Amino acid sequence: MFQSFTATTSPEQGPPRLEALRAEMAHARLDAFLVPRADAHQGEYVAACDERLAWLTGFTGSAGFAAVLAEEAGVFVDGRYTLQVRAQVADVFTPVAWPETKLGPWLAERLKDGAVVGFDPWLHTVKEVRTLTEALKPKGIALKPVENLVDEIRDDRPSRPQEPLRIHDIAVAGESHGDKRARLAKELRDKGVASAVITLPDSMCWLLNVRGSDIPRNPLAQGFGLLHDDGRVMFFTNATTDDDVLAHLGPEVALAAYDGLTAALTTLGGPVLIDPDTVPEAVRDVLHRERIKIVEDRDPCVLPKARKTEAEIAATRGAHLRDGAAMIEFLAWFDREAPKGGLTEIEAAKALEGFRRATNALHDISFDTISGAGPHGAIVHYRVTEETNRGINPGELYLVDSGGQYLDGTTDITRTIAVGEPTEQQRADFTRVLQGTIAISRTRFPKGLAGRDLDALARAPLWMAGQDFAHGTGHGVGVFLCVHEGPQRLSRISEVPLEPGMILSNEPGYYREGEYGIRIENLIVVREAEPLGDKREQYDFETLTWVPIDLRLVSGDMLSPGERDWLNAYHAKIAELMDGRLSDEAAAWLTDATRAI
Amino acid sequence: MFQSFTATTSPEQGPPRLEALRAEMAHARLDAFLVPRADAHQGEYVAACDERLAWLTGFTGSAGFAAVLAEEAGVFVDGRYTLQVRAQVADVFTPVAWPETKLGPWLAERLKDGAVVGFDPWLHTVKEVRTLTEALKPKGIALKPVENLVDEIRDDRPSRPQEPLRIHDIAVAGESHGDKRARLAKELRDKGVASAVITLPDSMCWLLNVRGSDIPRNPLAQGFGLLHDDGRVMFFTNATTDDDVLAHLGPEVALAAYDGLTAALTTLGGPVLIDPDTVPEAVRDVLHRERIKIVEDRDPCVLPKARKTEAEIAATRGAHLRDGAAMIEFLAWFDREAPKGGLTEIEAAKALEGFRRATNALHDISFDTISGAGPHGAIVHYRVTEETNRGINPGELYLVDSGGQYLDGTTDITRTIAVGEPTEQQRADFTRVLQGTIAISRTRFPKGLAGRDLDALARAPLWMAGQDFAHGTGHGVGVFLCVHEGPQRLSRISEVPLEPGMILSNEPGYYREGEYGIRIENLIVVREAEPLGDKREQYDFETLTWVPIDLRLVSGDMLSPGERDWLNAYHAKIAELMDGRLSDEAAAWLTDATRAI
Repeated sequence: MFQSFTATTSPEQGPPRLEALRAEMAHARLDAFLVPRADAHQGEYVAACDERLAWLTGFTGSAGFAAVLAEEAGVFVDGRYTLQVRAQVADVFTPVAWPETKLGPWLAERLKDGAVVGFDPWLHTVKEVRTLTEALKPKGIALKPVENLVDEIRDDRPSRPQEPLRIHDIAVAGESHGDKRARLAKELRDKGVASAVITLPDSMCWLLNVRGSDIPRNPLAQGFGLLHDDGRVMFFTNATTDDDVLAHLGPEVALAAYDGLTAALTTLGGPVLIDPDTVPEAVRDVLHRERIKIVEDRDPCVLPKARKTEAEIAATRGAHLRDGAAMIEFLAWFDREAPKGGLTEIEAAKALEGFRRATNALHDISFDTISGAGPHGAIVHYRVTEETNRGINPGELYLVDSGGQYLDGTTDITRTIAVGEPTEQQRADFTRVLQGTIAISRTRFPKGLAGRDLDALARAPLWMAGQDFAHGTGHGVGVFLCVHEGPQRLSRISEVPLEPGMILSNEPGYYREGEYGIRIENLIVVREAEPLGDKREQYDFETLTWVPIDLRLVSGDMLSPGERDWLNAYHAKIAELMDGRLSDEAAAWLTDATRAI
Repeated sequence: MFQSFTATTSPEQGPPRLEALRAEMAHARLDAFLVPRADAHQGEYVAACDERLAWLTGFTGSAGFAAVLAEEAGVFVDGRYTLQVRAQVADVFTPVAWPETKLGPWLAERLKDGAVVGFDPWLHTVKEVRTLTEALKPKGIALKPVENLVDEIRDDRPSRPQEPLRIHDIAVAGESHGDKRARLAKELRDKGVASAVITLPDSMCWLLNVRGSDIPRNPLAQGFGLLHDDGRVMFFTNATTDDDVLAHLGPEVALAAYDGLTAALTTLGGPVLIDPDTVPEAVRDVLHRERIKIVEDRDPCVLPKARKTEAEIAATRGAHLRDGAAMIEFLAWFDREAPKGGLTEIEAAKALEGFRRATNALHDISFDTISGAGPHGAIVHYRVTEETNRGINPGELYLVDSGGQYLDGTTDITRTIAVGEPTEQQRADFTRVLQGTIAISRTRFPKGLAGRDLDALARAPLWMAGQDFAHGTGHGVGVFLCVHEGPQRLSRISEVPLEPGMILSNEPGYYREGEYGIRIENLIVVREAEPLGDKREQYDFETLTWVPIDLRLVSGDMLSPGERDWLNAYHAKIAELMDGRLSDEAAAWLTDATRAI
């Protein structure tokens, strides 16, 4: 199994570790020290050696940070983790609601004029440090880059991962790394930039058509990169290589040790491009000290990576058919087993992983499956453990959000299933969520719009019933890469214009705390729309996910003719695409599950 | 009649006037001179004395400007006026598509290094001049404020209007001007500002609870104002006053001549607030020369004016019932007359104005009625003249966009009517537009959203058919004030959060060039929504306009259950509200026009 269901936290280790850290702080004459969850790559997952926040506090969420003072230690977490942080940290730590409470004002209130706040400049971006410096300046509080004090007191720190680098198939990528490097190098030259520092591992893996296994769930090799304006690349990573990989990389890509970046930076001419939103302050600091001219701009890989090639989209379609068949096997199994009673959340998650493994193509799951029955479905980022595991009972809704990493694509799908007879309220709530899903699925829209301009379509059916959901409508998704990928989003806060090839999730939801959660999630990809009507230049979304939506939860009376047509056409297409891909039992189940309404 | 249907342009006067202007330019050693349509108040209408662009070029549209060089004279107009400008200007003028072609690059391409562009600093805002200066700087072209050369050569220039100032009823305004001044003065003190320069006449009229008649359609007194941080106001206007008005204004409001602003500016202490988006460059220039500290911020009246009081909304509801009854009388008359054949666009516009006048409460129409049959309906800002007037024929659609200025409110309504049997395509197009109107009318949405966040709701039904409309979904509207009022808008370009009391139009449309135009426009006002569902804090829109929508054009099959419910409830409410307000004939017509479908 990829997924483990054991709780990994040990709150009792927090107090002595906090004490040790404070001793280090006193020794270094620091009034505060920052311990973020992030590593130098600002990703969603970190390697064991970078699990500083969990090690210190016990909190294992995927985002947050601690601010340790002599008398107080705040653990800043967002709304997803309000309950979890209380369960995971000892009472020497104070949970703080973030971003409602911002770090700058929180520190300013507690520290005296002249105080010094230490931080590890590899773990904070240029922009973060800039913002915090501005916030603390009026109070006369200084930020000071220092060695990481948590690493100093941590005897058991694991070593940095050294997993094999693997070649990412050109048939999936659709563009050689030579072509990518040449294309991006030209952009650097056009901008008058000699080199770009790349610190996002998915940027590097995309650029070089490689993948790795340094962290869970995301098939990444951890590392930094330098891209030069002649197309040469230096890749700083501890990932191991064989002759095939070296041949794949070729003479224009040099490999160096992970910690070789700093020395290499000092040798650069300039100007050097850095992305202030992602590049560590330490990089800026080195360049600044060496008087190398800095140009701040977006990581040059980010947008090209987001605009998938035809080959990437074709490969992803295949991954989704494979993954969809596994999901359908699971749903057929679930519909047989759950009504008997006694099925648990963990059993369901294990069964689902089993069906994905049975494809013989599963590289990893793309995140820990969210398997939530009844009230657990209302916890948006619920992760089932042996402690929280509960039965899935008749009369309840079951929410399952999961995905697979395949060599040809990354999937992410949520379905909400009725066990037994749903209530009218459940059906009405579900149908409103479905109307949001359908609105995004079938819209066409003018070129130039951003996620922000479409977000209302997904929410309006809920808004009109006085309802809403407290997460984005959709996130970007990679191709055998990160399941959460920027910059494309369907969200009120996204100003990035949508462009053909961008893969996104479409996942409206609705959550009744203490009762049930509903979410319907398909992946979609932006494309040029077929000319229609006035032949305006429009985009629309191709749906990638082909798994039925539980018709027992659909209140047909609430649907418009167009919504009903979409749903029936979606189900008819699933039946067509899945022909020959399923067990007899699942095929029979699918016939009923995709009936026209 | 308020509306005149004569064409007022005389292209043949353009060439000699242009020649005279060029002689002045040569004399003043200017390589170019700018002639905007705008006056010093940046409004939609200008007084006759400020009609410089029309006088010089013949172009009478409500927006645009000329850039006159020695060898070329560009007349910059937006898409609404592409056809009109060609008909109205002589061929010594070159129409330029704006904003696709921007003034800066256009000048930079044509002028030499060291060239000087003259402009009247009263007619261009601080921001406009700043932007243009930046655009011309790299080419070494300078902007030079000068006396207005058009005024110098214009012997027949009318004098500035001197119409009476009238008191705006406190029962309509809902807040005394003393309270408004005190409230805004406190805001100035909180900002550390001693005085604010106000150059928008609707800001001044709102602030002092007065109205005027200096320009057509908008009941404004032209003038400038100074608001001081103790609540005193100086109003620079040529509007005439009587004892009642003077008593209304009281001792804290001083009146001065329109052209007294400059001298008064030099006596100010500071800091002085100016709104760079609306205040003339001349004002900034005086303050700058006098070394008075300038603070740039939004005109302090703009947002308070946009957030209507309860009294303003109540009064406006009354104005809409009166105006709606007149519209219904018109529609009943139209349905009787039009099918006979021979009715013209001008006759229809005159009849509509007649029904509004018959209320005995019409102060003015709020803009020249757009009365367009068949292909004329597809011209978004069509203004019928004796030259363009055409018959309204069976089988055609008729689009009528009009409004009234009443002492208790400003209305703006568009209806599209089928004459005879509509085609399936007309019905489908109309229904999609109606679905947009309904989507905005019935949505509820979270606090904090701007017009941009809702705009997609109005367009999605059209988008899905490969259609769209090339204007905003809605504009702000005043109360017995400007029918186009900022800053609130329903538009992809509006980032201003919607707030309770803001009145907006809701006017999706669809235009088939050469065939027909469709637009459905109601006014709506933002309000706190009744708690529903999860009792989230939401706003919704109260509809102000109560006039039936032509059911002969509605394709019921295309509507969702919720859309159908909205339409039926809207029509039932009209029948209820209009009870006792109509002639027998119109009442009988209304019964059929508001039948449930």
